[in-house]
Amino acid sequence: MEKKDSIKERIKEANAKAVAAMFAAQPVWVDMAKAGDVIPGMKKNTLLHAGPPQEYKHMCGPQRGAAWGCLIFEGYAKDAEEAHRMLEAGEFEFAPAHDHDAVAGAAQVVSYSQPVIIVENQTNQKRYYSHVKEDTFVALRYGSHGEHTIKKLRWLAEVVSPAFSKLLRKMGGINCKDIIAKSLFMGDEGHNRNQAETCLFLQAIMPAALESDLSREEIRELAWLLQHDENFFLYQVMTSCKAMLDAGKEVEYSSIVTTMARNGTEFGIKVSGLGDRWFTAPAPKVKGLYFPGFTEEDACPDLGDSCITETAGLGGFAMAASPAIVHFGTATGVGGSVSDAINYTKEMYEITEAENPSYQIAYLDFRGCPTGIDIIKVLDTGIQPIINTSISPKKPGRSQAGAGLVRAPMECFKKAFEAFVDRYQIAYPHLASNPGPLPGAGRASFWGSGKRRKGE
Amino acid sequence: MEKKDSIKERIKEANAKAVAAMFAAQPVWVDMAKAGDVIPGMKKNTLLHAGPPQEYKHMCGPQRGAAWGCLIFEGYAKDAEEAHRMLEAGEFEFAPAHDHDAVAGAAQVVSYSQPVIIVENQTNQKRYYSHVKEDTFVALRYGSHGEHTIKKLRWLAEVVSPAFSKLLRKMGGINCKDIIAKSLFMGDEGHNRNQAETCLFLQAIMPAALESDLSREEIRELAWLLQHDENFFLYQVMTSCKAMLDAGKEVEYSSIVTTMARNGTEFGIKVSGLGDRWFTAPAPKVKGLYFPGFTEEDACPDLGDSCITETAGLGGFAMAASPAIVHFGTATGVGGSVSDAINYTKEMYEITEAENPSYQIAYLDFRGCPTGIDIIKVLDTGIQPIINTSISPKKPGRSQAGAGLVRAPMECFKKAFEAFVDRYQIAYPHLASNPGPLPGAGRASFWGSGKRRKGE
Repeated sequence: MEKKDSIKERIKEANAKAVAAMFAAQPVWVDMAKAGDVIPGMKKNTLLHAGPPQEYKHMCGPQRGAAWGCLIFEGYAKDAEEAHRMLEAGEFEFAPAHDHDAVAGAAQVVSYSQPVIIVENQTNQKRYYSHVKEDTFVALRYGSHGEHTIKKLRWLAEVVSPAFSKLLRKMGGINCKDIIAKSLFMGDEGHNRNQAETCLFLQAIMPAALESDLSREEIRELAWLLQHDENFFLYQVMTSCKAMLDAGKEVEYSSIVTTMARNGTEFGIKVSGLGDRWFTAPAPKVKGLYFPGFTEEDACPDLGDSCITETAGLGGFAMAASPAIVHFGTATGVGGSVSDAINYTKEMYEITEAENPSYQIAYLDFRGCPTGIDIIKVLDTGIQPIINTSISPKKPGRSQAGAGLVRAPMECFKKAFEAFVDRYQIAYPHLASNPGPLPGAGRASFWGSGKRRKGE
Repeated sequence: MEKKDSIKERIKEANAKAVAAMFAAQPVWVDMAKAGDVIPGMKKNTLLHAGPPQEYKHMCGPQRGAAWGCLIFEGYAKDAEEAHRMLEAGEFEFAPAHDHDAVAGAAQVVSYSQPVIIVENQTNQKRYYSHVKEDTFVALRYGSHGEHTIKKLRWLAEVVSPAFSKLLRKMGGINCKDIIAKSLFMGDEGHNRNQAETCLFLQAIMPAALESDLSREEIRELAWLLQHDENFFLYQVMTSCKAMLDAGKEVEYSSIVTTMARNGTEFGIKVSGLGDRWFTAPAPKVKGLYFPGFTEEDACPDLGDSCITETAGLGGFAMAASPAIVHFGTATGVGGSVSDAINYTKEMYEITEAENPSYQIAYLDFRGCPTGIDIIKVLDTGIQPIINTSISPKKPGRSQAGAGLVRAPMECFKKAFEAFVDRYQIAYPHLASNPGPLPGAGRASFWGSGKRRKGE
C-alpha cells in the first residue's frame, strides 16, 4: 500500500493530465456517412443504444420502439410486431453507442444504414459518431417508429447526409468548439438550448453552400432543416463532447469521469483511471415540465447519452450561461428559477477538476465552465452532478414528453470509487472493513480536509 | 394654474397612454428602396444627418466626411474638396433624419440615392426609414468616403437592396419585434450586440430566399453580407425602435422621452407632450475601449441616432441581457464589468415608466426592459440615461475608433422640463423665480415624495 500523500499527488497529476487533454481537443464536424461504413465494429445486425449495456428483454419502452423503427427502416421487418419477434429471437446484437466511439440521444437506436455525423478531434485525429437530430418531437429517439419517422430517416439518409457530406468536405469541416464557445455568450448551454449554435452554424455554411456544387434544392433542404429544428446542433455538440472527453480517458490514477449515460433503466458512468468499465445504478426519474397530454406517470426514467454534455461541463453545468432555459419555449425549458440555474453551475465547481478556458460563462465574470467531474469530490461533498434533459415517454410510439432536471445517482460514484481504491490499492480503512458508508460520510473527507458532505 | 394632484393624475394617464401605444407597435421590415423615392420631404439636395439640427459650418469631422461621401456617391462631386466647397456654398439642405421619420447611425448622412430599410408599424401603418449597415469598421457612418466606401454603397444600392426588396415583398416582411424579443434571450442588447438578431434573421429568410426567384448569386451576396457583418441587423432594430417610440409621440401631458439623438456636437431629446421640439446640450465624450491606433484624443463626442435603442429600453437599458458585451470581441465590447452591465439595467427602472412585456431579460427573472424615460423621474432621481455606443473618429476618413458608455446630459432634461411646466402651466414655485436649480435638487422631489437625488 502506498502512502496517502504520495497517492494524492499521483491522482492530482493524473487528473490534471486528463483534463488538459480534454481542453486541448479540437472537435471538428468533418463529414456525414452511413453508420455501417464508418462506426468501428458495426455489423449489419448491430444496434447501438444509449447508456450502459442493455438486453432487449430489459429494455425500456421508447428504446424498444426505436429498435423496432430501426428494423423497419432497414427493411428487415414490416412492422413493430414483426420487429419485436425478431429482436426477441436474438437475431440482433445490442451494444452501447459509447463503446463504439458514438453517442445516441434519448431512446435512439442507431442501425447500419442510418446517416451519422462524424466529428474528428483534430488534436489526435480520432473520430466520433452520432445520429443526426431528425425532428423536434416525434422522432425515433423518443421511440416513434411510424411512417413519419421512417420517412424522415430516409430523407436524412438520402438527401441531408449526402448534402452535408459534400459541403463539409469542401469546407474542410466546421470547428464545433468555436461555435459552442460563442453560443455560451448567446444563451445556449449546449444540451437543451442549441439555438445559437444552430444559427451560427447556418451563418457559417451558407455562403460556402451557395458557392459549392450543391444544387439549389439541396441547399433549400438544409436551410429548411436548420430553420425548423432550432436545436438541430445538439448532436454535433454531443459528439464534440464525446471527442473531448475521450481524449482524457484511460489516464492511470485519474478519478475524472469520462462518461455519464443512461439507458432508461440504468444510469452508468466511466472513470478515466478505470478504463472502459461501466459503474451503474438504477436510472432516476426526471423532475420537469411536461407537454400537454403527459404527466410524470407517462415518463420513462432518465434516458440517453445526451448527458455527455454535462460530463464535458456543458448542459446543467453551464446553466448560468442560459437563464432563459428555465422557461418552457418549444422543447427547451427545463423548469426551476433563474437563480436555481445559476446556482447549479456554481455548485458544480465543487465537484470538478478545472474551469474550461474556451467555454466561458459571461454572467459569472467569464469564469470557465466547471469541467472534469472528480468521483472523489462527488463523494467528499455529497454533491451529485446536475443534468438538464428531455423526458422520453414510457410507452413506445409517443413523442417527447417534456424536459427537466435530474441528478446522477450517487451509487454509480460509490461503486466507481470502490473499484478505484481497489485498482490502485489505496489505503482507505473504512472500505476494507465496511464498504457501506460513503467516503466523506463520516467526520472527515477522504483527503482529511474535514469538509462536510452536503446536508450534514 | 391647475392643482398639483390633478396635474399629476393627468401626466400619469398621459404617460401610461404613450407607453401603451409604444408597446402595441408591431415593427415589420417590409421593404428596401431608394431614399428619395420613399422618405417624406426628401429632395435631390436633401442630406439627412443624425441628431438635432446641424449646419455644415458647425458639423463634426466624421459627419462632414460622410456628407462628402454622399456628394461623391451621388455624382455631384469628384472628391472631398469639391464636395466641401459645394457644401460651404450652401447648395445642399441638411436636416435631422429624425424629422423625416428616419434614423441615421453614428456620423451617417443619408442622401437621395442611398438604399434604405423600410420598417412599418403594422399597428398604425406608419413607415420609418434607415440606411443599411454598410460595413463593420470603414464606413460612411464613421466619415469614411474613399473608394472602398463608395463602392460598397453602390453594391448595397444595386445588389443588396433590390434583392432584399424582392424577398421581403414575397415574404410579407419580417417581424422585427419577434426577432428582438428572441435575441434578448441570446445575449443581444440590440445596440452594440446584434449577433443573435443577425443570425435569427438569416435563419428566417433562407428557405424563402431559396424558394424565391432571386438568383443563386443574389442569395449568395445576402448570405455573405449576413456572415461578414455579425451586427448587420442594428439598423433594422433602430428603425423598429423609431417606429415604436413614434407611436407614443404627441400625447398631451406626457413627460415621456420619444427621441434621444446626437450630432457630434449636441445631444438632443424630444418629449411626447412637447411635440417635435428638440431640447439640446453639448454632446458628451464617451468612455470606452479603443481600437489600436486610437485614443480618447481621437474620439468625436457622442454621435448618432443609435441611442434610439436606449430610448426604447434596449442598448444600455438592456445590458443585463448581454453580459458578454463588456468584453472587446470585434466591435461590440463596451468595457466595464458584468456587474456594471446588470446594474445599469436595474438603475434604469428608476427613471422609466414601464417594463416591456415583449422584451424581457431572462437573467432578471424575465423582467421587462425598462422603457419610457420620464423626464420628471430623471430630474427627481438625478439618474441620467445610460447609453452604450460605438465611438466615431474626430477626423473624417478614419474608421470606427472604439465603443463605450456615456450618459445623456442632464441639461437636455432640465430644458425639456422647463418647457413642460411652461406648456402645461404647472405650478412649480422654484422655476418661476429661479430657473437654475433642478427639480428634486432641493429637499423633496417634484412630486413631494422626498426622494433624494443620486449622490446627495
